[in-house]
Amino acid sequence: MAEKIRIFITGGTFDKEYDEIGGRLFFKDSHVPEMLRLGRCLVPVETRTLMMIDSLEMTQEDRALILQSCKSAKEARIVITHGTDTMEETARVLGEAKLKKTIILTGAMVPYKFGSSDGLFNLGSALAFAETLSPGVYIAMNGRYFNWDNVRKDKSSGEFKEHKS
Amino acid sequence: MAEKIRIFITGGTFDKEYDEIGGRLFFKDSHVPEMLRLGRCLVPVETRTLMMIDSLEMTQEDRALILQSCKSAKEARIVITHGTDTMEETARVLGEAKLKKTIILTGAMVPYKFGSSDGLFNLGSALAFAETLSPGVYIAMNGRYFNWDNVRKDKSSGEFKEHKS
Amino acid sequence: MAEKIRIFITGGTFDKEYDEIGGRLFFKDSHVPEMLRLGRCLVPVETRTLMMIDSLEMTQEDRALILQSCKSAKEARIVITHGTDTMEETARVLGEAKLKKTIILTGAMVPYKFGSSDGLFNLGSALAFAETLSPGVYIAMNGRYFNWDNVRKDKSSGEFKEHKS
Amino acid sequence: MAEKIRIFITGGTFDKEYDEIGGRLFFKDSHVPEMLRLGRCLVPVETRTLMMIDSLEMTQEDRALILQSCKSAKEARIVITHGTDTMEETARVLGEAKLKKTIILTGAMVPYKFGSSDGLFNLGSALAFAETLSPGVYIAMNGRYFNWDNVRKDKSSGEFKEHKS
Repeated sequence: MAEKIRIFITGGTFDKEYDEIGGRLFFKDSHVPEMLRLGRCLVPVETRTLMMIDSLEMTQEDRALILQSCKSAKEARIVITHGTDTMEETARVLGEAKLKKTIILTGAMVPYKFGSSDGLFNLGSALAFAETLSPGVYIAMNGRYFNWDNVRKDKSSGEFKEHKS
Repeated sequence: MAEKIRIFITGGTFDKEYDEIGGRLFFKDSHVPEMLRLGRCLVPVETRTLMMIDSLEMTQEDRALILQSCKSAKEARIVITHGTDTMEETARVLGEAKLKKTIILTGAMVPYKFGSSDGLFNLGSALAFAETLSPGVYIAMNGRYFNWDNVRKDKSSGEFKEHKS
Repeated sequence: MAEKIRIFITGGTFDKEYDEIGGRLFFKDSHVPEMLRLGRCLVPVETRTLMMIDSLEMTQEDRALILQSCKSAKEARIVITHGTDTMEETARVLGEAKLKKTIILTGAMVPYKFGSSDGLFNLGSALAFAETLSPGVYIAMNGRYFNWDNVRKDKSSGEFKEHKS
Repeated sequence: MAEKIRIFITGGTFDKEYDEIGGRLFFKDSHVPEMLRLGRCLVPVETRTLMMIDSLEMTQEDRALILQSCKSAKEARIVITHGTDTMEETARVLGEAKLKKTIILTGAMVPYKFGSSDGLFNLGSALAFAETLSPGVYIAMNGRYFNWDNVRKDKSSGEFKEHKS
């Protein structure tokens, strides 16, 4: 039997919806449960929504809540869905806490509800990294994983890269 | 820089298309390159189509070709897309050859071109397992991975399970 | 207030599903209600499933049931979803009955559940033709409509054409 | 042979794209040609992009250009894709000009690239209305059509209704 993975949802592009009346993007409910069904996920998971926000609006209090939730979780393997704009900041907060857990932050470049989203691909790989990597904090995007202290988002391409590259 | 992964395509449900004239499912070209684009895959990969068939029609010659291709590949990490019906047989042929490579077989329960496919999720996790697991032969489906000598497909549910479970 | 339209469902490519266990196409429930929701259809409709079959298997008894259902319906405007292979035969049975109703047969070249389906486009135009054409029996496919006595399916291209063209 | 229909593209929700870098909706190219391919449209059409804007930003000069384009077109049947927010204003400008043409304005509540879009359904019905309605200016949305001088968008529900209803 596979080990249970905890999934914490914080919002981000993953979960943006289109508001038909206002013509804007907004947050309603998370699409992660639907994505797990679509992936016919057989890994036992426990999902919890901590917040549902754009990561540009994430405060230090929000990050403290995420850290506390990782500490309190009884699972040793955790996936966090998160907006990409400040994903590396949250990774740093979690990394510096030196928990003895495998924590994977992931997200999407395009909302799941857009046909062209990378979200399902990223969620599949994030769960696989959570199952196999040793304790530490990682960002997993577009098939790759990065250590929390060696990653940055390239603002012009939108891609995550090693810090020094 | 991430290590290059070799992807071998053999067909399977992943790649089934709908034939508008005949009203049947058939194989044309592989959807794997399109899926890698959708996932905005940043892992360097080299893709090669070995065959494009339903795995129920796969012969021992076909399996010998897959094994030979894994041996010849200069990459040490390999993903093979494959129909689920005989995936465990091919895994056994590869496993018994005891190559010093990480080989992941993956597939889909529903064709990629069907909106409800698990293919993108599986491909994302297969690449992640290929990057992280130690040398061996594995089946990766629906978020989980199984050693080649401890897996069977449950014919009634369509799910992969540990052999003894 | 718009006039109510009756929708009779008979199956056809429109409604084919993918059977994950058997790897075949089959019929379960109709997707027409979901398609009407997706189109945010504001035309009042009453939907009824008469059968759920491939039109190659449709018998004269089945066609007699469709004709009888059109006669009995209290609505004067009717849309019938139907497989394309024998759509012109059913249209002839209905056309020769000379009902004083506007009856539109429509279908799809690709199952609705396949991302690349023409079904939603066809359903939208079929409803519009049902609202605007004078009494008669028509086939509506891919943006065009044809009188029941001047249409044939071109077996090689899969397209509907005027009989003499 | 079916009569040729002219399609004028002006932008609107139909054509909104997701900007991966900025996380915003924006306009790039029109999706109408792709939608016609998906619908396997067999009606001869000639497509021309007049502008690519949110209809809230449409000026009287823009509307004058649309009117002039309808006048100059050699086709007597025209479909205009348009944002829904000011669709009734453009319809009024065209309606008061009393051209002897059948002009259908249509749009979408949700961008075509979002999986849940009504766009394909609306485009299918707009073309059907263009083929069948007598000269005049109409708004076609969600399966219904309205005369230009008897329609309003209900701001709270987003639905088009008869003016007096």
